[in-house]
Amino acid sequence: MKIGEKHYRSIWWEENDPAVIKIIDQERLPFFLEIKELHTVKDVYDSICSMKVRGAPVIGSAAAFGIWLATLGVSRISSAEGKLSDAAKYLISSRPTAVNLAWAVNSMLAGLSGITSLEELRETALRSALGIYNNEIENCLAIGRHGVGIIEEISRKKKGSPVNILTHCNAGWLACIDWGTATSPIYLARDRKIPVHVWVDETRPRNQGARLTTFELSNENIPNTLIVDNTGGHLMQQGMVDVVITGSDRTAISGDTANKIGTYLKALAAKDNNVPFYVALPSSSIDFKITDGIKEIPVEERDPSELTDIQGINNGKIISVRLCPDYTKAVNFGFDITPARLISGLITERGICSASENGIKNMFKDKLAQNYGRGC
Amino acid sequence: MKIGEKHYRSIWWEENDPAVIKIIDQERLPFFLEIKELHTVKDVYDSICSMKVRGAPVIGSAAAFGIWLATLGVSRISSAEGKLSDAAKYLISSRPTAVNLAWAVNSMLAGLSGITSLEELRETALRSALGIYNNEIENCLAIGRHGVGIIEEISRKKKGSPVNILTHCNAGWLACIDWGTATSPIYLARDRKIPVHVWVDETRPRNQGARLTTFELSNENIPNTLIVDNTGGHLMQQGMVDVVITGSDRTAISGDTANKIGTYLKALAAKDNNVPFYVALPSSSIDFKITDGIKEIPVEERDPSELTDIQGINNGKIISVRLCPDYTKAVNFGFDITPARLISGLITERGICSASENGIKNMFKDKLAQNYGRGC
Repeated sequence: MKIGEKHYRSIWWEENDPAVIKIIDQERLPFFLEIKELHTVKDVYDSICSMKVRGAPVIGSAAAFGIWLATLGVSRISSAEGKLSDAAKYLISSRPTAVNLAWAVNSMLAGLSGITSLEELRETALRSALGIYNNEIENCLAIGRHGVGIIEEISRKKKGSPVNILTHCNAGWLACIDWGTATSPIYLARDRKIPVHVWVDETRPRNQGARLTTFELSNENIPNTLIVDNTGGHLMQQGMVDVVITGSDRTAISGDTANKIGTYLKALAAKDNNVPFYVALPSSSIDFKITDGIKEIPVEERDPSELTDIQGINNGKIISVRLCPDYTKAVNFGFDITPARLISGLITERGICSASENGIKNMFKDKLAQNYGRGC
Repeated sequence: MKIGEKHYRSIWWEENDPAVIKIIDQERLPFFLEIKELHTVKDVYDSICSMKVRGAPVIGSAAAFGIWLATLGVSRISSAEGKLSDAAKYLISSRPTAVNLAWAVNSMLAGLSGITSLEELRETALRSALGIYNNEIENCLAIGRHGVGIIEEISRKKKGSPVNILTHCNAGWLACIDWGTATSPIYLARDRKIPVHVWVDETRPRNQGARLTTFELSNENIPNTLIVDNTGGHLMQQGMVDVVITGSDRTAISGDTANKIGTYLKALAAKDNNVPFYVALPSSSIDFKITDGIKEIPVEERDPSELTDIQGINNGKIISVRLCPDYTKAVNFGFDITPARLISGLITERGICSASENGIKNMFKDKLAQNYGRGC
């Protein structure tokens, strides 16, 4: 999608610069647009941990490219299996909740087993990583094509006055290489001349909404308004939200969905005010092995300093300020689980299904048959 | 309550410094403890607008003292009525949602009408303002005495393991002169040796939880943990919250309650997880004229810069950083309305009643009979 007049993706590989992966450093956005180069597995690991690279599809692709970068560091084919296995474990440990990450890494390993020449190993690794990468982009576009119908129908009922969509965190193109998941239907609605307006939750503690979602929507000329996370309930009570669309970090086969902390609260408010609440996700983030999301999906606890300190810009420099006394104790859970009963539907690359075991099984029979489970 | 080893109130008058009101500047907390002097009606107005003075009881008392300060500026008794009426309108305009403010000002005016000497006018004004002030403190203590029973009962069931209380914003002694409303039962529980732990919502956009509630609880040695506002739902899902207690800015006779934006979301999560949700309030914040809180209580829209920019400390200085691009549009609603159906009970100075017209009418028959309505 666009930044200014130029088209970008949030991670990419260039044929004419073939031993490196490039990313937009999401830690510097929206204040500075900086491109970082990843040369090694450690570069990939660090970029995921520090959230320079973030969002399930980007993390998955970055990790897949990470395995490819690991093949470049293998000097003899006989040591490949051990080295790639170490790289895989290391990469998977960077974000325990991200199911795509483990899937992408394991899928890469499976495709590389039994290869007997270094050249073939490297070529296959790059081809496989690009396959995962392009597949994520196609999935996002397909999610948009299915989801745009929801917005179109609301627009018809509202007789052309703007459709108000609330979103939490950044499930946009920055998180998903291109198009985004939650934002893809919005971009396609805009392309179809449907008037839309997006309420953007700032999404504490890391403020991905304030920093990234407003940035990408504004660069694509989509009208949007930033709100604190506390506001959505009030807006819904006052009839100012027509639909909520969020992303997903992991969806259990029951439809229970782990997403950025606070998503559950918005789903409750949507239910209480009869506002439809959709989750947009590629099926790669469905965990076919988990049936009770609340009990079984592990919730990452992150560093409390993400909460007690905040970054912003002051006199042209990104600086950090402390928000509370030095002695204040804080905890920082990264995700919460929205129970399936609060979700109107899952917008996937194959279509919209109910957030239920039946809905998911009917749409993804083949994947289930393949024992497609992606548990970390 | 205590800051370090010294006892403070958040606003006070001293007999030996009789033409001035003193406040703790809540804009500077928790980083600096600074006392400000208010000499004029304009000083009072500015301190309310800028939220140096905040919290319904403190605002009400400040405004009452404001009318007294206005009497000091009256040079002839014949001009008193006009001057005090102007001061009253001016003070009321400083915070439109705060029902105590209008009530305190109007009550002061009513008590001063018909007085024929300047000396009597001033003496009566000071006496009346101190009456309102002391009454607020007594009410807070009474709220604590009634509310502590809730915590005590949970503690019995938990067989002495700490009672986890979640609170939103700062309905503590800083907001209420002394004791607080939501915090008063907590302080009294501590005094009764009941082990408690408080989850403190940071309370965006102005972070009163992070800045004030953690500060006051820690200074009183109450164990507390700061969380982002998005976290409460997850904690309740995981059984980590035993009870929610918040304050109220205005409660309709139906029990619908206006409180800091985001309160409604916590009430929804409490309902969804069978966690009791109490609102602690002096009856001075009940609006006996309003029956439908969601339709009738006006919600203040504040400056978006409170949201797009944030204050914190860096190298010993309070500075402000911008959190989003310059071009980002934002809105900032100050309150939301929690419907009565989500509230387990109202903890008032007279006892705990149900959040319903019946509950409120039974407990406050006499006030209703006096046509006690405090609509702004």
